Formats: sequence, C-alpha cells, structure tokens
Amino acid sequence: MAPSPTLRIVIVAPETLAPDPSDALAWWQAERSRSLRIGLLENGYNIVAVLPPDLYLPERLAQIQPDMVIIDTESEARDTLEHVVFASRDARRPIVLFTDDTNTSHVKDAIAAGVTAYVVAGLAPERIKPVLDVAMARFQHEEALRRELADAKTQLHERKTIERAKGILMRRQGCDEREAYERLRKTAMDKGLRLAEVAQRLLDVADILG
Amino acid sequence: MAPSPTLRIVIVAPETLAPDPSDALAWWQAERSRSLRIGLLENGYNIVAVLPPDLYLPERLAQIQPDMVIIDTESEARDTLEHVVFASRDARRPIVLFTDDTNTSHVKDAIAAGVTAYVVAGLAPERIKPVLDVAMARFQHEEALRRELADAKTQLHERKTIERAKGILMRRQGCDEREAYERLRKTAMDKGLRLAEVAQRLLDVADILG
Repeated sequence: MAPSPTLRIVIVAPETLAPDPSDALAWWQAERSRSLRIGLLENGYNIVAVLPPDLYLPERLAQIQPDMVIIDTESEARDTLEHVVFASRDARRPIVLFTDDTNTSHVKDAIAAGVTAYVVAGLAPERIKPVLDVAMARFQHEEALRRELADAKTQLHERKTIERAKGILMRRQGCDEREAYERLRKTAMDKGLRLAEVAQRLLDVADILG
Repeated sequence: MAPSPTLRIVIVAPETLAPDPSDALAWWQAERSRSLRIGLLENGYNIVAVLPPDLYLPERLAQIQPDMVIIDTESEARDTLEHVVFASRDARRPIVLFTDDTNTSHVKDAIAAGVTAYVVAGLAPERIKPVLDVAMARFQHEEALRRELADAKTQLHERKTIERAKGILMRRQGCDEREAYERLRKTAMDKGLRLAEVAQRLLDVADILG
C-alpha cells in the first residue's frame, strides 16, 4: 500500500499523560501512549483528535468522521470499545485496539463487535505503520465481503417480496403470473419506483384491502 | 479464548536452520525461525511439521490437515503463499505470515489471497500466543461471514432456478403457477430430491425436449 499521510486518526485514550508520579503502572501507560503518538506522527499520520472514552464519544466521532480509530486504554477497554462500536454503527471504520494485556479471552467478542486489529504489546514505532496498513487492508477486505453479503440478502428479500406480491395479484385479479408481473412492472415505471418497492407497498396495504 | 494446547501447526520455512556462518542475513533469519519455534513450543502449540515451500506442499498439507499454517520465510514469500493458498482452497484454514519486511505493499494481495494475519517484525515469544489467538478469532469471524454469504447466494440461485423451472412448466403444460409448483414439489418428494435439484434437472433437459 502507498503511504497514507492523509489518514485521519482519532485516538481514544484516558487523559492521563501526566499521571501521579508515584503510580508506576499509570506512568508506564502514559509512556506507552506517548510513544504511540510519536510513532504515528513520525510515520506521517494525522492525529485529528485524542478523545476520552466518555458518553460524548459517539457524537464527537460522528462530527470528526476519522478514517480510523485507535483505542489506547488499559482500563475500561470494554466500555470504550462499546462506545466506539456504537459510534461506528452507521459509518463503519477500522478500529485498532492497542493493549498490553496478553489475556486474549476478550478477543473473540472484540472482533465480533467490529475491532479490525487487536495489537498486544507491540508498540515499537517502526511497527506502527505496518500494523495500521494491515488493519486497513483487513478492514477493506471485510467490508467488501460484508457489502456482497448485504447485496445478496437484499436481492433475496426483494425477490421474495416480488413473488408474494405477484401471488396476491394473481389471486385477487384472477390473472396469470406473467400478467401479475406486467402490472407490477408498469406501476413501477409509472411511479418511478423500483419493482421491489411497488411489491412492498402492495404487501403493506394488502391486509387493508382484505 | 482458552489456551489451545492441541492446536496443530505446520510451519512453512526454507531449510536453513544451519546456514553458512559467513552469511549474516541467513544467520539472522535462522535465529528468528528458531525463536519462533521455541516460542510456539513454550506456549504449548503442537508443531506437527516444518515443510519447505516446494511443489509437494499442497499434497503434504492435505495429508496433515493442520489447524493453522505459519509461513516463516523472507525469500520467495509470494510463491510460498501461492502454494499454501492453493493447498487451502478446499479446506480453508488460518494462514499467518511472519516477516521482517516492513514494506507492506503486498499486504492487500496477501489478505485477498487468504492470509489471516500478517505479522511484521514481532516475534518476541510472549507475543506469539496473543497473535495466534487473534488470528484464529479473525479466521473464525470471517469464515462465519463467508458461510453466510455462500448460503445467501445459494438460496438466491435456487430461487431463480425454481422460478425458471416453474415458468417452463407453466408454458409447456399450460398450467398456473400453483400447479407448476405442486408438480415440482411432488417430483422432489417422489425422487427424494430437493426442490431446487428437480428444478435444475428440468432446466438441464428443457432444451432437449424442445
């Protein structure tokens, strides 16, 4: 893949870049977060925002529309993930989860929820670009698969709808299949609708007509 | 995920574990390969075979039927990948590609070809299990998506086949849609076939019958 200097990234992380010096774990996490951001900047990525994992996250993501979301948080990873996935429901985007936690028992749930890459303890700056490249490629690959599935399901659903509408017409009007189809088709053309839309409207009102 | 001590892994790697001592690159790669295998063994994985990336690879993979294939080769990675993907056509399995090459220009092709995880320069033993856990979860997630897509396509195809068969019956026998359907259904029951199979056979011979 060509370098993506314009990739707009939002990092979701708690605001702990200057934690209590006596808290070794917090310091380590802050250090890791800093190194991640430096690595991103060194590799030419555009960090458009660093957002805390709070209730406003979905709204902010919807406003910013980043190309990728990186979740960088040890604590409350599950809640954070839920916020991000919720915010990406209608506009799917690659979600990369960085964690030091080698306990991978939640990986399956995370991937099912929409996480593209789950990176455990691998934050060397020179690794960041390959990891994000792979995440982006995986995301696009899965999106293509998803679109194909959605198309196939839509086609199947529409075909069923049209068949049911034809059945109703044939019964009500005493016409044959070809004529029922022609009536649907003509209505679709006259109204500027798709065949499946006309069929669905017929089904919607069939009960009223009795 | 629970630990998978019984995961049967095949490593695909060139036979260079004792390379020419004057070749620094070969030594480094051999060292990396050794560290990968130690990491796998330390994490309780079962390395059932280490196979060279040659023409016999597909046949050997078909015999061994491993749960996962790890490609560990710097040179000829593309040819190797081709062999492995070819061998996994009918029995899809997770393929993990380990490489030191941070040039990710081939990632997109690799993922489209069936590579589940593409791990760049991340071979510390403690990282191996999380990486393979993630690869397995991703593989299963994508397989589920793939199965759903295959089902939807089959349903759509069968529905079209049945509709076309009904159309032929209606034209040839001058019967209505309901009767055409009943004839197909009765034949399916009599012959112990699925409705779509009967429909397909009718289409197959429709031209002969004229």
